[in-house]
Amino acid sequence: MAIRHRHISVNGLCFHVAEIGQGAPLILLHGWPEFWATWEPLMLRLSDRFHLMAPDFRGFGDSAKPDREPTDQAGANVHANDILAIMDALSLDDAGFVGHDIGAYVMQELARAHPERCTKLLFFNCPTHGVGVRWRDPDHINQIWYQTFHQMPYAAQIVGATRDSCRAHIGHFLKHWSYKENAFDDALERWIDNFMLPGNLQGGFNFYLSQNAKRLAVMTGTAPKPEKIKVPTRVVWGRHDPVLRVEWADALPDAFENVSIDVAEDCGHFVHYENPDRAADEIAAFFT
Amino acid sequence: MAIRHRHISVNGLCFHVAEIGQGAPLILLHGWPEFWATWEPLMLRLSDRFHLMAPDFRGFGDSAKPDREPTDQAGANVHANDILAIMDALSLDDAGFVGHDIGAYVMQELARAHPERCTKLLFFNCPTHGVGVRWRDPDHINQIWYQTFHQMPYAAQIVGATRDSCRAHIGHFLKHWSYKENAFDDALERWIDNFMLPGNLQGGFNFYLSQNAKRLAVMTGTAPKPEKIKVPTRVVWGRHDPVLRVEWADALPDAFENVSIDVAEDCGHFVHYENPDRAADEIAAFFT
Repeated sequence: MAIRHRHISVNGLCFHVAEIGQGAPLILLHGWPEFWATWEPLMLRLSDRFHLMAPDFRGFGDSAKPDREPTDQAGANVHANDILAIMDALSLDDAGFVGHDIGAYVMQELARAHPERCTKLLFFNCPTHGVGVRWRDPDHINQIWYQTFHQMPYAAQIVGATRDSCRAHIGHFLKHWSYKENAFDDALERWIDNFMLPGNLQGGFNFYLSQNAKRLAVMTGTAPKPEKIKVPTRVVWGRHDPVLRVEWADALPDAFENVSIDVAEDCGHFVHYENPDRAADEIAAFFT
Repeated sequence: MAIRHRHISVNGLCFHVAEIGQGAPLILLHGWPEFWATWEPLMLRLSDRFHLMAPDFRGFGDSAKPDREPTDQAGANVHANDILAIMDALSLDDAGFVGHDIGAYVMQELARAHPERCTKLLFFNCPTHGVGVRWRDPDHINQIWYQTFHQMPYAAQIVGATRDSCRAHIGHFLKHWSYKENAFDDALERWIDNFMLPGNLQGGFNFYLSQNAKRLAVMTGTAPKPEKIKVPTRVVWGRHDPVLRVEWADALPDAFENVSIDVAEDCGHFVHYENPDRAADEIAAFFT
């Protein structure tokens, strides 16, 4: 079975969705620096049991880039609305969701605003409100600089100045955030092909501009605590993620009413890509 | 009178020192992203009263670049030892010091280790131990990202990939940190000429690698409080410096036994360059 590529026009934009398989619908939501292809290893492993759909968020992959300039109108809520519109276009009343990084924020938006559209949620690592002031712990300060750099109006210019510049920046995060340092080595040029497409660097950076106010409110420790999510939830957290620390799993019960948690010992930030066998087993067990 | 350029070999390296004038010796210590030329407006205004010497630190300007690769051996203590060696080579028993940014750290090292070599200290803005946890206040987090970015092994590669990339990054800080937004407009290409010289980007970034451990210790609020500096000190702090906040002047009496403080209302980070008339008057009054 091969992955199929659909283009779906909703919210005035053309979205790319990669899909494969038959069975219960599962929607896979990527992070940064990623696009639909980060789910490919999982999609190939699960196509006999699920109907897997991996959209590219606006500004990413092969989806539309409405915001070629820096904008703060591309946050998790905007992506969540895009996903709902894609579900409507596909006549999907509900689906299971799998996601991480940006996708993890989008899934929390979706599950709070439209729990009826979500059957279950599976996160690979999951930043929540309860991380709080720990974002700016002294021993974490050197991990969060990119969240500011990506807001600089010249960030996409210098990261995209040459293919080597792009590879240096994107490649750094794929390696630094992985426990299996070489996990993305074979995929690196495909990733750079994608991020060098016009608009994809700024498209990703716009998430950081859009989330900045919320991010700072969480860091002050004074942001209002959001309502607990009632949709059944599973979190598998890579033990060695340097940016989303496994210790922060202690905040999950404050965010989710019904959550089971486990640790992927041999993974960092990209559980789904570093250990796709384990990740596929988790998905199969949780959504079957 | 014209600025003269000397080259002085000490500590196994050739240092460039710009100088002008006759009278009491004053040594001017630059910051990042700067080199000796940041002092030029002051030097031209004060040459009738002082012997002004503006060295380039190792890794900067026209001084040697011993560390073409990332190193943590180019911190304030290393620069302070270089300045002492330059003073020895010039047969200067002591001198007055004027500095800011990196220069401000170097002056504090010098004045603690060798107070007998310093007649007086004048700082334009002055980060001290007492800034403490305020470095990582939520409303300051977006100001300190470059202190981490500059530690990335690929930072010099992407900033120096093209002249436009270099201009985007260096130009950002010259503008963002100035209250007079256009203060460096006429000098910008000269600055980029300088930072595009082989080794000068990594040379500057090595300061951040070298200071990182101390920086994090200060941010935890648990770093041991250093001895008070006894050398007579004047601090003139630009009201609108976004990265070294004028409020942090409250920590100066903890760092200096004998300090007078004033605010430059129409300046940001670069008091000496944004308002060289005021800066020259301050120097003339304090060192005469």
